[in-house]
Amino acid sequence: MKDFTFYSPTEFVFGRGTEHQTGSLVRAYGGTRAIVVYGGGSAVRSGLLGRVEESLAEAGVEYCELGGVQPNPTDAKVYEGIDLCRRAKADFLLAVGGGSVIDTAKAMAAGVPYSGDFWDFFAGRAVPGEALPVGVVLTIPAAGSEGSGNSVITKLDGLHKLSLRTPKVLRPAFAVMDPALTFTLPAWQTACGATDMMAHIMERYFTNTEATSVADRMCEGVMLSIIEETPKAMHNPDDYGARANLMWAGTVAHNGTCGVGCEEDWASHFMEHEVSAVYGVTHGAGLAVIFPAWLTYMAGHNVRKVEQWARRVWGVWAGADAMSVALEGVACFKRFLHSIGMPVTFGELGIANPDISLLVDKLHEDKGELVGNYIRLDRKATREIYELAL
Amino acid sequence: MKDFTFYSPTEFVFGRGTEHQTGSLVRAYGGTRAIVVYGGGSAVRSGLLGRVEESLAEAGVEYCELGGVQPNPTDAKVYEGIDLCRRAKADFLLAVGGGSVIDTAKAMAAGVPYSGDFWDFFAGRAVPGEALPVGVVLTIPAAGSEGSGNSVITKLDGLHKLSLRTPKVLRPAFAVMDPALTFTLPAWQTACGATDMMAHIMERYFTNTEATSVADRMCEGVMLSIIEETPKAMHNPDDYGARANLMWAGTVAHNGTCGVGCEEDWASHFMEHEVSAVYGVTHGAGLAVIFPAWLTYMAGHNVRKVEQWARRVWGVWAGADAMSVALEGVACFKRFLHSIGMPVTFGELGIANPDISLLVDKLHEDKGELVGNYIRLDRKATREIYELAL
Repeated sequence: MKDFTFYSPTEFVFGRGTEHQTGSLVRAYGGTRAIVVYGGGSAVRSGLLGRVEESLAEAGVEYCELGGVQPNPTDAKVYEGIDLCRRAKADFLLAVGGGSVIDTAKAMAAGVPYSGDFWDFFAGRAVPGEALPVGVVLTIPAAGSEGSGNSVITKLDGLHKLSLRTPKVLRPAFAVMDPALTFTLPAWQTACGATDMMAHIMERYFTNTEATSVADRMCEGVMLSIIEETPKAMHNPDDYGARANLMWAGTVAHNGTCGVGCEEDWASHFMEHEVSAVYGVTHGAGLAVIFPAWLTYMAGHNVRKVEQWARRVWGVWAGADAMSVALEGVACFKRFLHSIGMPVTFGELGIANPDISLLVDKLHEDKGELVGNYIRLDRKATREIYELAL
Repeated sequence: MKDFTFYSPTEFVFGRGTEHQTGSLVRAYGGTRAIVVYGGGSAVRSGLLGRVEESLAEAGVEYCELGGVQPNPTDAKVYEGIDLCRRAKADFLLAVGGGSVIDTAKAMAAGVPYSGDFWDFFAGRAVPGEALPVGVVLTIPAAGSEGSGNSVITKLDGLHKLSLRTPKVLRPAFAVMDPALTFTLPAWQTACGATDMMAHIMERYFTNTEATSVADRMCEGVMLSIIEETPKAMHNPDDYGARANLMWAGTVAHNGTCGVGCEEDWASHFMEHEVSAVYGVTHGAGLAVIFPAWLTYMAGHNVRKVEQWARRVWGVWAGADAMSVALEGVACFKRFLHSIGMPVTFGELGIANPDISLLVDKLHEDKGELVGNYIRLDRKATREIYELAL
């Protein structure tokens, strides 16, 4: 086990109707003038935004709105938001939405007190030393941003989708999590979210670090739960228990709980970020295409953990050797993804002829000549993995 | 799943040599005059206390010592500590030790700013509204107190061992966790610690709450890890990986990670507290005697979760019916406990003729006429469980 720091100070307030506590939570964490960040119209149409703003007003929190955050959120919206925060002298950012909304709020939170260009943080030219506090009312369980210190933003100029990872400063102060808010999530989005959660766990699980028994077992357990609960939530959208388990799975998948003491990988995420930056696909669907290809490559080059995953998560016991067990696990994973309506090839994702050279070039331009850790992947390897996804 | 709040703000700094960071951590969390609380002489003899105090001095933290905390810590030491804190105008409590030391420091932390008798908090007559910050250098993985908001203290007058559970105020600010510090733990103490961790998970796992898939799977995973790692640590005390996994298992077993959204039980802990209060046995060893008896009773009265535990944790597949599967799981658990040197009966614990009437009377005097939740146990039921442990 590697040395690690586990720090997840976010107060997770989980259950039915918890959005009514938003105002008092903002006050408890020092907010008096909040910017309410949200995405499309669903938060408005569902009445959630109204309930949240009512709660803010009751708690005596002033607020103004920043709507219109899009999936794969962009730097343009962040610049707009930073400007609004400064004009409104905001002291709190409240994200009402999923990962795109939360990530936009976090980028604003880091950018407001910074004299330079907030993109410096994403480009690795500066490290955020302070940030406005961020609170979350979660509507889409997927990205895990409600519990992480991370943010992913796409720069429109050049379509660079980059992530900022902080150990402390961007962890939300609180996250209000009402599973009933996710009853109206379409099946497609439910499945994309579940795939993203699985991927967050697998980025940590596939490690060469030795002696990671607690981390392994917890990762396997949460994966098993996602595999059990996703079909339930898709077949019966109002199944509170299934929605609740998925919502919490998304948080522990990415707040550090899973994978403590493991060297993490993240090659699949980086490879997918290029796909969604260039082709505008949903992140979870892109991961459903990239991750099986990555696993297939790993089964042939570093089989140990893929075999363990195949046995413990997918129950594969047949197979004459480690590699065939591992590949059967990958086949099970693909069948699971298909069963929840996910694509597992570029073609199924709607990209008949992906420009793999462009993806490889942008990947290594953004992330360096070697990406990932379970195996350090060069251009030849990442090209092979993209091709395995055809 | 029940509504819940998950709040674990403690900064866990985990790895080799992390005790050298103690001073800077105390400063980061506002400490300038600390009381260093510790137990017997092992922290002194091993040189740990010296290294910690050197780190405090380097960070410019003044300190004085309060040693001599005993297992099953008493109110007498807490009163002594509160008096010392007030005289020294301490603003930080640093616990260097295991659960007894940490629990003593927490009780002091709550008692110092309180004008009444700190025992009010344990007797349920008052709720602590504020407390001095507590930091931890952990030397015994077992009680999980480094990540919990709880404290367990025994009142010498009448031998009442009571627990104080707070959602926020007594959570440590930080916990320094160096698995190498546990290389010198005797096999007996290692096994008692592992049993305590298992018990902390089982108190949460055995619940009637429906739709707890993530919690169930995480609990099962951490139990599997404890079962794998404990024999390794006992057979090779310097096995860093085994020690590290056990140390982290002890934390997640009790900081709320396992069992979110579940109604918890705690009858076995309450029943054991009476045994250790009256007979002075080690808590983990007492649990090794009480828990199998509790499980045997449950197999006959509410089998569902005991059967699931037998199948998923102990791999029991034979058995014609749920109850025989469950009882085979209990038998596996007892064999595991025996294999790590734990007693599973009062006789093996060295109490040939326990005064069960006294234990039952004290239990219900302390905890009311009904204890536990998986089944609400009356005097007849708790007597039967104590008798099953004969």
